[in-house]
Amino acid sequence: MDEQEIVIGLVTISDRASQGVYEDQGIPALTAWLELALATRWKAVTRIVPDERAIIESTLCELADQIGCHLVLTTGGTGPAPRDVTPEATLAVADRELPGFGEQMRAVSLKYVPTAILSRQVGAVRGKTLMLNLPGQPKAIKETLDGVFAAVPYCIDLIGGPYIETHEEIVRAFRPKSALREKK
Amino acid sequence: MDEQEIVIGLVTISDRASQGVYEDQGIPALTAWLELALATRWKAVTRIVPDERAIIESTLCELADQIGCHLVLTTGGTGPAPRDVTPEATLAVADRELPGFGEQMRAVSLKYVPTAILSRQVGAVRGKTLMLNLPGQPKAIKETLDGVFAAVPYCIDLIGGPYIETHEEIVRAFRPKSALREKK
Amino acid sequence: MDEQEIVIGLVTISDRASQGVYEDQGIPALTAWLELALATRWKAVTRIVPDERAIIESTLCELADQIGCHLVLTTGGTGPAPRDVTPEATLAVADRELPGFGEQMRAVSLKYVPTAILSRQVGAVRGKTLMLNLPGQPKAIKETLDGVFAAVPYCIDLIGGPYIETHEEIVRAFRPKSALREKK
Repeated sequence: MDEQEIVIGLVTISDRASQGVYEDQGIPALTAWLELALATRWKAVTRIVPDERAIIESTLCELADQIGCHLVLTTGGTGPAPRDVTPEATLAVADRELPGFGEQMRAVSLKYVPTAILSRQVGAVRGKTLMLNLPGQPKAIKETLDGVFAAVPYCIDLIGGPYIETHEEIVRAFRPKSALREKK
Repeated sequence: MDEQEIVIGLVTISDRASQGVYEDQGIPALTAWLELALATRWKAVTRIVPDERAIIESTLCELADQIGCHLVLTTGGTGPAPRDVTPEATLAVADRELPGFGEQMRAVSLKYVPTAILSRQVGAVRGKTLMLNLPGQPKAIKETLDGVFAAVPYCIDLIGGPYIETHEEIVRAFRPKSALREKK
Repeated sequence: MDEQEIVIGLVTISDRASQGVYEDQGIPALTAWLELALATRWKAVTRIVPDERAIIESTLCELADQIGCHLVLTTGGTGPAPRDVTPEATLAVADRELPGFGEQMRAVSLKYVPTAILSRQVGAVRGKTLMLNLPGQPKAIKETLDGVFAAVPYCIDLIGGPYIETHEEIVRAFRPKSALREKK
């Protein structure tokens, strides 16, 4: 087997979900979208954590450094409320931000709701791991992934990760010609 | 009376207006727009200050902390010229930036003038106060408020402020269903 | 002669181009666009440097401070790969960022390729010099300059540089009426 398995961290960030006050809807929504979109073999590593900056930071570091995730998707904690600290935690453990992800995720959500302005979500790189903050609502998760995932596989190429292929009827991974590999 | 009055700080930032060299047009433009848009009772607290970072910072702190403004709108001082320091002052006293406001205010203005790119205006939160930098020109003030105010009432909900209602023919305050209250 | 000559720094940032592994295409693409667009007399000062942050920083400082460039255009080094450090170097020597340039350059490129999200390019000011990071590909250079250059002449006015005029069939320099001078 020459094909590398993609490892994706899925992190729900929510005080209530982490206390079991209500059932997490974030990880199921992320999983459902990825199942449809990814043509390459992948596995998920999941975490449900409260809106505590130190816990979010250590969770992201564990997923990136110990588990070796190529991609980490978080859901929740990106609004203006005082308990929302996901973007701060993500940037604190990042080597560099990719500001286009935050801009474009907001621009995509803005087609649906004017309050998309309020999201502070970021995309950032830690080592060979791309980290993206997604909204908390399942509907908004799908809209956002539909809107930006086309750029994710090439980004993971560039930071040294595996070659990811997608089902084109869901999302067409875009790469410059020089970066394309032949289909298996 | 169970309805809380909204307190809004309006700050013109301009060397010339603060010296009386010309008549301030910023606060009148802000007031005119808010009079038409807000359905909830509100009062303005106004300041006219020069383009001096320390003075702008202390004015924003006074309006947020002593006066208890729920919203502070500044006008002027956001361009690339050396004397323009409004965004620096706003971020210096902010707990956190809401980058979607800057992005979207520029995107809105860009429909009218290509030099909207040059504005460095930001939206940010200090405690329970939302602070927004608006352009200096009355026409651009109106265009910007038309373009982003729909997200302001829900933002103020989320940071612990009063429930603001608007006249829908001017701007429809957007909230998720779970955050809507019955009309009085 | 009362007309000031514009001095523009053109910097290719590429390990391979700087080693002569392949021929630089960035500076020729920048020059070709500027030749068509600028109506005011201008001269280029060119540099080809590797993706080394310290070298990029000292090159930008030399062009801004010693040479006195009014505008510096870089090409290359803005992606997510570990060797891409152009935005970090640019911000490190900047007095202030103009975030609208990064946002709008990405928005323009996004009309052509979804991976435009991945560019971290910035616009920033150092003293009286406007610095803009452009993409590496000649096609993307042209698209980006077509998309944002209308705001460049007025920006250079505001930071104390010479009055730049353009050929309107390529790009129409936009200024508010109060900033317009009579055509010569």
